[in-house]
Amino acid sequence: MVFEPLDANYLQKVRSSFHRQKFMEFIGAKLAEVRPGYCEIHLPYKKELSQQHGFFHAGVIGALADNSGGYAAFTLMPPHSSILTVEYKMNIIAPGDGELLIARAHVIKAGSTLTICRPEVFVVKDGCEKMSAAALMTLIALPGRPDRPRQHLRSNEHD
Amino acid sequence: MVFEPLDANYLQKVRSSFHRQKFMEFIGAKLAEVRPGYCEIHLPYKKELSQQHGFFHAGVIGALADNSGGYAAFTLMPPHSSILTVEYKMNIIAPGDGELLIARAHVIKAGSTLTICRPEVFVVKDGCEKMSAAALMTLIALPGRPDRPRQHLRSNEHD
Amino acid sequence: MVFEPLDANYLQKVRSSFHRQKFMEFIGAKLAEVRPGYCEIHLPYKKELSQQHGFFHAGVIGALADNSGGYAAFTLMPPHSSILTVEYKMNIIAPGDGELLIARAHVIKAGSTLTICRPEVFVVKDGCEKMSAAALMTLIALPGRPDRPRQHLRSNEHD
Amino acid sequence: MVFEPLDANYLQKVRSSFHRQKFMEFIGAKLAEVRPGYCEIHLPYKKELSQQHGFFHAGVIGALADNSGGYAAFTLMPPHSSILTVEYKMNIIAPGDGELLIARAHVIKAGSTLTICRPEVFVVKDGCEKMSAAALMTLIALPGRPDRPRQHLRSNEHD
Repeated sequence: MVFEPLDANYLQKVRSSFHRQKFMEFIGAKLAEVRPGYCEIHLPYKKELSQQHGFFHAGVIGALADNSGGYAAFTLMPPHSSILTVEYKMNIIAPGDGELLIARAHVIKAGSTLTICRPEVFVVKDGCEKMSAAALMTLIALPGRPDRPRQHLRSNEHD
Repeated sequence: MVFEPLDANYLQKVRSSFHRQKFMEFIGAKLAEVRPGYCEIHLPYKKELSQQHGFFHAGVIGALADNSGGYAAFTLMPPHSSILTVEYKMNIIAPGDGELLIARAHVIKAGSTLTICRPEVFVVKDGCEKMSAAALMTLIALPGRPDRPRQHLRSNEHD
Repeated sequence: MVFEPLDANYLQKVRSSFHRQKFMEFIGAKLAEVRPGYCEIHLPYKKELSQQHGFFHAGVIGALADNSGGYAAFTLMPPHSSILTVEYKMNIIAPGDGELLIARAHVIKAGSTLTICRPEVFVVKDGCEKMSAAALMTLIALPGRPDRPRQHLRSNEHD
Repeated sequence: MVFEPLDANYLQKVRSSFHRQKFMEFIGAKLAEVRPGYCEIHLPYKKELSQQHGFFHAGVIGALADNSGGYAAFTLMPPHSSILTVEYKMNIIAPGDGELLIARAHVIKAGSTLTICRPEVFVVKDGCEKMSAAALMTLIALPGRPDRPRQHLRSNEHD
C-alpha cells in the first residue's frame, strides 16, 4: 500500500519522539528506516536483554514490535497529533536466538481515529534472517495532542 | 481456581529461572509472589524504562505481562519441563503513569500441552493502584526439556 | 465493577438492537440477561451449528462472544450513540460439546471512545457448565450515530 | 511461502471435513480454493447473516476467518491427524457491507505441533473488493486423531 503523509514533517517527528524514549536508548535500539506507513527498528544483542536460555527476551521482542507499529502509524498522523497503543497481539514464531533483532511494521488500515498495523520481528543469526514474531496491532490517534514530554502532557491534562 | 502443582519444587524452579533472566535484572523487576497458577512481579519506575511522555513504556508493560503469565504457567509444569510463550494479546487500558508496576497473572486453563493465562498489569501512583493493561496469553509446555541456560539448550537441540 | 448507565433506556435499546440482528434469530440465540456493563446470551444446540465433529462450531462460539461483548459495551453508551467491534481475541479452551452455549461479557474499562470487555463462553452438557472460550475485546463508540437499520445508516453516511 | 503437503490426499481431506461442517452449509459458505498452506472460502449475502444495520454480522466474518485459517493449516497435516483452533485475534477493518464475503488464509508458520495463520476477510460490493477483517491465528495438531464425526471422536476419547 502507498500512503500519503498528512504531515510533511513526519520523519523529523518520528525521530524526535523515538529519541525521547529512554527505554529505546537503554536497550540499544536504533531507528533504521521510516517511510509513510512503515517503520523499521534494529536492536543488537546484549546479554542484558536475555531470558533464561540466553535468547532475546520475549518482552524485548514485544517492545520492538509495539514500537515499530506505533511509529509506522505515527508517520500518517496529521500535525499536532499523537498516537497511543490500544492493543496488540503477538505470536512468538521462533526463539530470539541471534545477534540482531529487526522489527518491521506496516500499516494495513489508516483511519482518522484508529490505525491497524502488522509488526513483524526477525532475528538475524550468523547473517541469516528468520521470522521470530508476527503481530497485529491497533492504535488510536489523539488529535490536537502533540507528542511531547511528560511535564507538557501533565499540564495539558488539566485543560 | 485452586491448582495442585505437579512439581513440589515449583517455587525454587520459578525463582531460579527468573534469576537467570538478565532482562528482568536489567530493568529492575522483582518476583513478588508465586503460588500454584499465579505469579506477581513488581517493577519500580526509573527513567530508563520510559516512553516519550516519561511514563512506563508499553514494551515494559508487555514484558511484565508476558513474564508474569509465563511463570504462573511454569508453576504447574511437571518436573523436567520448560514452557514457552506461544502468543499473547494485551490491551493498554491506562498509561503507565506512576512509581511502580505490578503484574499479576492467573492461569485460567492448565492443559498438558497448552496453558492459558490472564496477566494484568497495574500502575501505582501516589499509593493508588489502577489497571494499566489486561492480557490473554497462551503457553506451551516442552516436556523433557528442563529450563536450562543456553549452552545446555543448544546441545539438547542436536538430540 | 459497578457501572452507571448514561442512558436510562439502555435495556430497551439493547433488546431492540439484538432483535434487529437477523443472524441471532437465525442461529436461535436469546438475550438472557442485561445489566449495566454486562450481557449474557444463550444458544441451544442444533445440528446446523456444528463443526465436523458435531460440536458447536468455533465460529458460533466466536459470534456469541463478540455479541455479548458488544451489548455489554452498548449498555454504557450515551443516548444516540452506537458501538462497533474494533477487534477481539478469543482462546478456545474446551470444545463446544454440549446442549447449550452461554456467553457472558463484562466491561472492564468504559471510556468515552473505547470500551474493553471480557467475554467468556460456557458450554453446558448434562447440566454441567464448563468454560469453552475466553476473549478480550475492544469496541469503539460512534457518538451521534444511533443504532439504526441499514437504510438509515446509508443515508447518514452521506452527511 | 511454498509448502509441501505431508499428505498427498490433503485436498480430499479438507473437502470432506468442510462438508461435514453443518454450520458452513447452514450459512451457505463454499470452499473456493485449497492449496498447501492456503484456503479460500466464499459466502454470499443473505439477510439471515446480518447484524442490526443489515451488514454481514461480525460473528459471521469471524467464523469465516476461523474456518479459512483452520483449513489452510489442515492442508499441511500428516495423514491421520486433525487440527483444532487454539485462538485467534481479528480486527474488523471495514463493515461487512456487500454481496459476498471472501475469506483467505495463509499459513505463516507450520510446526509439527503449532501452526500460525493469517486469515483475511474481504467484502465485495458492486464488484469491488475491500478488506473487512485481518486476523492472526494459532492452531494445534492432534496427531493420530483423524478428523472424524462425533461418534468416532467420542469412542476415541476413552483410549
